[in-house]
This record gives sequence, C-alpha cells and structure tokens, in this order.
Amino acid sequence: MARPITFLSDYPVGDPFVGIVHAVLARGCPGARVIDLAHGLPRHAVGPAALVLARALPYAPPGVHLAVVDPGVGGARRGVALRCAEEERLLVGPDNGLLVPAAERFGGVVEVVDVSASPWRLPGVSATFHGRDVFAPVAARLAGGAPLSEGGTPVAPATLAPAPLTRPVREAGALVAHVVLVDGYGNVELDATAADLGLPVGSAVAVAGAAATVGRTFGDVAPGALLVHEDSSGSLALAVNAGSAAAALALAPGDAVRLEPQ
Amino acid sequence: MARPITFLSDYPVGDPFVGIVHAVLARGCPGARVIDLAHGLPRHAVGPAALVLARALPYAPPGVHLAVVDPGVGGARRGVALRCAEEERLLVGPDNGLLVPAAERFGGVVEVVDVSASPWRLPGVSATFHGRDVFAPVAARLAGGAPLSEGGTPVAPATLAPAPLTRPVREAGALVAHVVLVDGYGNVELDATAADLGLPVGSAVAVAGAAATVGRTFGDVAPGALLVHEDSSGSLALAVNAGSAAAALALAPGDAVRLEPQ
Amino acid sequence: MARPITFLSDYPVGDPFVGIVHAVLARGCPGARVIDLAHGLPRHAVGPAALVLARALPYAPPGVHLAVVDPGVGGARRGVALRCAEEERLLVGPDNGLLVPAAERFGGVVEVVDVSASPWRLPGVSATFHGRDVFAPVAARLAGGAPLSEGGTPVAPATLAPAPLTRPVREAGALVAHVVLVDGYGNVELDATAADLGLPVGSAVAVAGAAATVGRTFGDVAPGALLVHEDSSGSLALAVNAGSAAAALALAPGDAVRLEPQ
Repeated sequence: MARPITFLSDYPVGDPFVGIVHAVLARGCPGARVIDLAHGLPRHAVGPAALVLARALPYAPPGVHLAVVDPGVGGARRGVALRCAEEERLLVGPDNGLLVPAAERFGGVVEVVDVSASPWRLPGVSATFHGRDVFAPVAARLAGGAPLSEGGTPVAPATLAPAPLTRPVREAGALVAHVVLVDGYGNVELDATAADLGLPVGSAVAVAGAAATVGRTFGDVAPGALLVHEDSSGSLALAVNAGSAAAALALAPGDAVRLEPQ
Repeated sequence: MARPITFLSDYPVGDPFVGIVHAVLARGCPGARVIDLAHGLPRHAVGPAALVLARALPYAPPGVHLAVVDPGVGGARRGVALRCAEEERLLVGPDNGLLVPAAERFGGVVEVVDVSASPWRLPGVSATFHGRDVFAPVAARLAGGAPLSEGGTPVAPATLAPAPLTRPVREAGALVAHVVLVDGYGNVELDATAADLGLPVGSAVAVAGAAATVGRTFGDVAPGALLVHEDSSGSLALAVNAGSAAAALALAPGDAVRLEPQ
Repeated sequence: MARPITFLSDYPVGDPFVGIVHAVLARGCPGARVIDLAHGLPRHAVGPAALVLARALPYAPPGVHLAVVDPGVGGARRGVALRCAEEERLLVGPDNGLLVPAAERFGGVVEVVDVSASPWRLPGVSATFHGRDVFAPVAARLAGGAPLSEGGTPVAPATLAPAPLTRPVREAGALVAHVVLVDGYGNVELDATAADLGLPVGSAVAVAGAAATVGRTFGDVAPGALLVHEDSSGSLALAVNAGSAAAALALAPGDAVRLEPQ
C-alpha cells in the first residue's frame, strides 16, 4: 500500500510544471494518492512557503511531503530527503530552509540524505527542473516504501540550511511586523502573532497610520473597515471586511507594517 | 467503499486554502476520490456559485458535494449538511443559499442538519476557515458512510436560506438581463435563457447598443463579431469569436444588459 | 483495472470547465486515475499546446491522453481518438493538429476514429463544450477498456490535420526564432534548439539587441542579467536571473526574436 504524497510549489498555475511532476509521481508510484497543498506561491519566496508548508502538514495524512521553491536550482544547493522524528513523515525538496519549519512541527529531523545524485533520479537531469528530474522520482520511490537511506548519501541534520524567516520587532510602543503573504482576497498575513500584539478584541489600533479594530472575524467590523485578527493559521493578520487590506494599505510581501495601540 | 466527494469554492487559485481542505478530506476519508469542480470563483458571489454547482452536479457521480462560498463565515449563519430526495446526494456548506439550486436539481431537500457544532468538526474551530475546520471533516465522515443524522442537530428544510439569484426583466420590447459570470475567455453568461430572448438563429439583436447576431457557436460569426447564443450550461450568453465579449462591452458580474431585436 | 487518463486544455483556471470534465470522467470511469498535465494554456494556441503535450507525455504512464484546445468547436473540424504505434497510448481531442506531435513521440498514429458522433458521447451535445460532451466520455470509455474501433467511424491517419508549428529561420549571421510560450516566471521558450544557435556556454549573444550570455542555469548570470539556455524541455529559451525575460524584452507568444553572436 503506497503512502500518500503531498505537493507544494511556487510553480505558476497555468504552466505545465505541476502537471509534469504529477506525471512523474504517477509513473513512479501508481498507487499513491497525491494531494496538492498549494502551487503558484510567490516566486522564490522560500520563507513564506516554508510557513505555508509547516501549517498545512498537520492537517495532511502522514506520508511523503514534496516541496519545491528553488531559486538555486542547478547551482550548489543540495537536494535533500529527510525523516522527521514523529509520524514517519518524509520531506523532499531543496536544502534552502524550505523544509525546516515543517520538520520542526514533527519533532525535528532525525535522518537526511543528499539526493542530488540519487540513484532514483531520472536520466539526463536538467539544469532548471529538479522538481521533475530529482525530487519527484525520489518522492515516488519513498511513497512506494523504499528506504530513505537508499535514496542518497547521508547528511548531518545540523548542516541543513535554516529557513529565511523574518521576525517582528518592538519600537517605542509599537509593533513593527512584516508581510509574509497576501492571499487572493487581499488579506495580509504578518510575521507576528496575536500575543505579540497583546490587545484584546475590540481594541483600537493604528495600522500603518490607518484606523483599525482588533476583532475575531470579518463581520466584526463594518464593510470596508480594517480588521486586525488572528487568522486561521494562528498568525496576526490584516483584513478589510468585503474588501482588500493589501489594496487599502498598498502592502506586498516583505513590507514592514507599524501597529500602534490607540 | 467510500463515496466520491466533489468540492467547489471561491478560494483563490494559488492560495493554500483548497489544498488544506484536500488534506483534511484525505485524512478524514483516505479512500474517497475528490473531484474539484471549480475554485477561484468570484469572491463571495453566492448566487453565481450556486448556479455553477447546480449545473455541474448532474455530470458528477452521486456522493458528497462540498461547496464553500461563505462571506458570513464566523458569524450567525448556520453550516449545514443535507440530503436530496434523489440519488442519495449529500450537500455540505454554509446555509446562505449556495446549496439550494443544486438540491432542487435532485428533487429538493429531505433532511438537513446544522453542523455548526458538529461532533465531527476539528478541535479549535477558527473564526474564518470553516471549510477546513467544519465542512471538510463533515464531508469526509459522510463520504465514509456515517449517517447524516449524527453530523449535527436537525433543521427544518423550509428554514434554509434561499439562493440570492437575479432574474431578467422585460421592458418595452427589450429583455434586460444581468451578468452572472464572465469566464476566462471573456464569454458573458446572463441570468436569462434562449427562450427568454425568443429569437431564432440568424436574428439581429442589439446588445447594450452593439450589433450582434443570434447563433449557435463561436464560428457562426466573423472573428471579432458579437454572438448571442445558448451556452453549454443552457444559459443565454454573449461571446466574441476569437475575442472577449466582456472586454468589448465592458461588462462585469451583476451588470444589467439590454437586448433588443433589430 | 482502469487505465490512467491525462488531461490538458486551455480551459481557464478558475472556471468550472476543467472540473466538469473531471466529473464526466469520474462518472464514466470511476476507477481511473486522472492526471492534470496543464490547464489555462494560451487560449486557442494549438501549436504551443501540442508541444506541451508532446513533451509531457513521455513522463506520464501510458494510458488515455485527453487534450482540448479547440477554437473550431461546434464547426466542421472532426473530433478524433487515435492509437499510437508504441506503448498502447490513446489520444483523444480535436483534429486540428493538437495531438500529432505527441503521437509522433510514440511512433506515429496507427488507428484513428472520428468521434464526432460517437455512440459514447453524452446525449444533447452542446455547440461549444465538446470537452464535456464528446471527448471526456470517449476518454472514460477507453480508460475502462472499450475498443477504440467502437468509439467512432474509421479515419485514415494520413488525413489528420498537421500541427500548426513555427520554425526558426537564419538571416545573415543571425537566428530568428519565435516565441512559443511564456511561463509564469516570465521565461521565454523559443521554437529553436540549442543546436540551432550553435554557441558554447559562456558565449555573448545579442537578443533583440540586448546583451545576453549563453549559460546552463539561472545562477550562471548575475541577478537581472539575461540568459540564453536550453530549458528543461530541450528548447532554446530566454530567462532573466530572478526576473522576467518576457517583461525585460516585451515579448509575447508569436513574436520573432533575433539572436546574433557577438
């Protein structure tokens, strides 16, 4: 019985990259269920994608978790497959920090192999599409039950690249957080938690100078009004009821946002 | 043997919402096939999504039909699961009219439960992502064969919120219809039928003042010319051969369009 | 045991067309795995889609390969299903050249039937959605093991429409290629190969007048610099490291691009 495979990437929606990886997975492990977690994530944004992966995996069945956001493809960065301490979860992708926060959710990393020259990779590996040529065939073999140790050469877990994550900072009565992701509705996720802000529901707060209210869900403020809330991933987030916080505040991933209690 | 699950939403393509719901479904019912009917539908547009669902389901195998377009998430609206009179079809989603036209295709609603506090929901339900926390786990249990009556508290079918649908109106020799959906090609679907217009193929008609021809398919008019036809969902629709009717006429969902025989 | 089905189309992402086809496939062949190769491809661009299909299929398991890019839907063009000489691969779609390059990858076409009036099509075929009404039910029956000869009337393979492909031309020391596809990153695929250009890695080349370097992967040039390389499909391609070649050079599908050694 094959293990399920989850798949996350920044491959653009509407391009054939995701589909070709699916083809390789189906050929390599015909019995494995493949679950797309997210594609079309912001290009080359390893930190945000690492957070998305770490938050999604606890909802997914244990199995093989393939993730590809890989600005260094074809260069010196290693490709890796690793085993987490808990639930026998296996992660496959580039060694650029993408997999690390997810592994931490499952007790950390207990075994890693470098799959860059894996015996399971496709013949004629390209310089720019290791999702197809290296990571997918490795994920398929693991889903079929092959031992991790046979997929590459051993790597010390401590040598894995860390995830490139930002952190909010405190400045004279204000919290300065950073935009991690903007979703398709224009909701803005920050690199802070509700505890970092530390204000009860109903509080007034200035967000980048604009009046906002701390609430629980979109309907807690009038249509068009700005809401600060804990989103469904547990992050501090900005939203406009029936509107777009990103448009209202002209925010994009990476931007700093000042939140001041009023 | 698990029943198939279909899934439709306005979750944006390129965000992780759809994928996380898939993860919950796979964990809750590993054997169920999941069929994505549509995602990225116009945000919070309950009426158009209700029509899309009602038209798609007759093509899908009977099973559990999950649909989430949910502007009132976290507020007072109920979450429901219901059984249709025919084909043992089960629908799961918010009680805002989204499910009603689909249920009417299958003989109407014979049993409803309020799943807002379902024993099957995930622990720690969020305020803004009931697709993940409530509707997906309920759909998974139903797909696995659990009885609807155990998923929540009974609700009288007559208390379900109606679908917020528009209807065309007649005005002094003209038909005034409304734009329901614009597809990615720029084809414009109206809230009217060919019978509402009542003109044979080949007729000349003014559409928002522009010259158009009643036809059967795109090639019935010259490239760049405007066509009025019955689209594949049985609705009256506007198209430009090898072009975009929405761009040519500057139409968006909700707009009124005047059609006058010439 | 049902055969896998792959599916490629220009149906826009975010519309219900792809999902309704999936519904028909699931109803027609409940046991078949369906692999989406690509959707949202450039509208009505038969040649580029034919290349995408031909490149993707060798990665996919043998089975039934459904492809729909169909500007002539509802008109005189035939719908066809065909068998390739190798691997028992079956292709289904419009007879407009879309399937031909893929068939050539598998030894060419040995049997074709016209499925326009297939006994397997849905009742009440629409004028504009043959993906749902004709091609999907035919693909589902073939996946379930029905003989190709029963799906329609025999057609001589030599009468299939050829693929509308462009070719690069040589002009006084320059190679003039054409843009086939632009991916979501802004990488530009040309209708030429690295052999057509014939320059070693490290060479300087002028691309539409701009300075570029022949390399192997994105990191071979500085961020923002222009790279000419063999992409993962084996085509000559233009890329900007951490940027968009399409934006930098203002290129769109069909445009001619002059490459001159410096």
